[in-house]
Amino acid sequence: MAKQMEGDMKSGRRDVLKMFAAATGAGAVALAPTLTGNVHATGASDKAPAVPWPYKKLDSQRVGERGYAAYYRGACCYGAFEAVVGELREAVGYPYTMMPSELMVFGEGGVAGISSLCGALIGAASAIFLVAGGLDGKKRGEAFEIIRELFTWYEQEALPNYRPKSPKFEIKSSVANSPLCHVSVTRWCKATGFKSFSNERSERCGWLAASVAKHAAELLNSRLDAAFKATHALPSQAQACRTCHDKGGVLEDSRGLMDCGGCHFTGAKVKHP
Amino acid sequence: MAKQMEGDMKSGRRDVLKMFAAATGAGAVALAPTLTGNVHATGASDKAPAVPWPYKKLDSQRVGERGYAAYYRGACCYGAFEAVVGELREAVGYPYTMMPSELMVFGEGGVAGISSLCGALIGAASAIFLVAGGLDGKKRGEAFEIIRELFTWYEQEALPNYRPKSPKFEIKSSVANSPLCHVSVTRWCKATGFKSFSNERSERCGWLAASVAKHAAELLNSRLDAAFKATHALPSQAQACRTCHDKGGVLEDSRGLMDCGGCHFTGAKVKHP
Repeated sequence: MAKQMEGDMKSGRRDVLKMFAAATGAGAVALAPTLTGNVHATGASDKAPAVPWPYKKLDSQRVGERGYAAYYRGACCYGAFEAVVGELREAVGYPYTMMPSELMVFGEGGVAGISSLCGALIGAASAIFLVAGGLDGKKRGEAFEIIRELFTWYEQEALPNYRPKSPKFEIKSSVANSPLCHVSVTRWCKATGFKSFSNERSERCGWLAASVAKHAAELLNSRLDAAFKATHALPSQAQACRTCHDKGGVLEDSRGLMDCGGCHFTGAKVKHP
Repeated sequence: MAKQMEGDMKSGRRDVLKMFAAATGAGAVALAPTLTGNVHATGASDKAPAVPWPYKKLDSQRVGERGYAAYYRGACCYGAFEAVVGELREAVGYPYTMMPSELMVFGEGGVAGISSLCGALIGAASAIFLVAGGLDGKKRGEAFEIIRELFTWYEQEALPNYRPKSPKFEIKSSVANSPLCHVSVTRWCKATGFKSFSNERSERCGWLAASVAKHAAELLNSRLDAAFKATHALPSQAQACRTCHDKGGVLEDSRGLMDCGGCHFTGAKVKHP
């Protein structure tokens, strides 16, 4: 595929050379708008094309490996985003060449170290939306289904589940029960005995960014094959909470598709309500 | 500034026309690499310029108003991001013309309706990082300081505090004590009596996206004047939690810069530890 793209670009260059040859013989003024206009020989434009951007099936192992390497440059959110977008930059080229992935560094450590939402989830959700979403309600809904599956998978699976080729340490997995950075970190610390600012914890988050990005690519690949299916459901306990608190419930005073039990009713047994 | 930019772009076009005129007389082949190369007459390029992107002082009221309008097109995260980036697209032009703001629709309702981190905070934090951050550690840290101030402000202030020019309803404010979507929504529902899926709650989130974007622009403006100063500190209770649980603490089993009391030790009095 990369070779085909290269070929396309070369043929694009040939076209421009032909135009130039024509210009030397014919009217330069007539051709000038092409030069000063909005479309590049490589297909680039002054204006970003509307989301969704073109997707090609990715090698999820490569995505994982790229995510791990990117984590050590720009942390978890950048790592997960760049894992997918960097692979697409190679496979598709423009418009991915125009995407400033460094934007996603903002999500480091649950956004600027605040430890709210896991940065790997922010980065992967952004990448999913870029290739599967859009302002249009139908596209938006389809991308949201994939993102929700990724979040519930993250809450329920033992992670990280991607081991990079050359890890700094061997890393044990844990179940987060929550998409939040500090909850995920604390559950891993309690499961392994490592401290939250240890090099091992940092390595764990590198593996995690890789794992999340790899799974995002797997979900996007299955979507491309029209085979995407959500396989992780909210726990029945959370469904029960939603019956009263979510849309149409007698209280309707909250909202959400997280595992309520990840934060509520943990530790001491709190009487409800 | 905008006029100067426009002038630069026009002179860029003139340069290309001159090149073309030269090509019609001189060697077309020698000029061909310029045509097939990476720079547009408008300053656009195949490759996104590195973050941070240029910032110009914004009218924060305009940012708020744009955020409110954008909310009704693409929800909270898109609304807050596009409020800042849309204004910069008008004031600066390229490279903001290349930014696909629809990417940020992913953050709707705490990411795809999951109600984790408030989408307005995700959108505003991204915009702050785009104009103030970078992969480089120093820039990253400076942008993180601004994002942290925005988050703590969000936790502590009565919001929304921006009233759009033509609102659908009048909206009362509440204090979230948390950057999380569902917590912020529930506290507002309890303070006002409205349901979480009411039109009034939706309008409230429109005002909130506007408020968050407006304040992000105020912080970025103060940074431009070298006058940025964090004015919202974590509560002493949260600082006390961090003494044991955060970096260097005897447990060091968590991390974070959120108000712990927003979720922990609420409702029934839970004995600690």
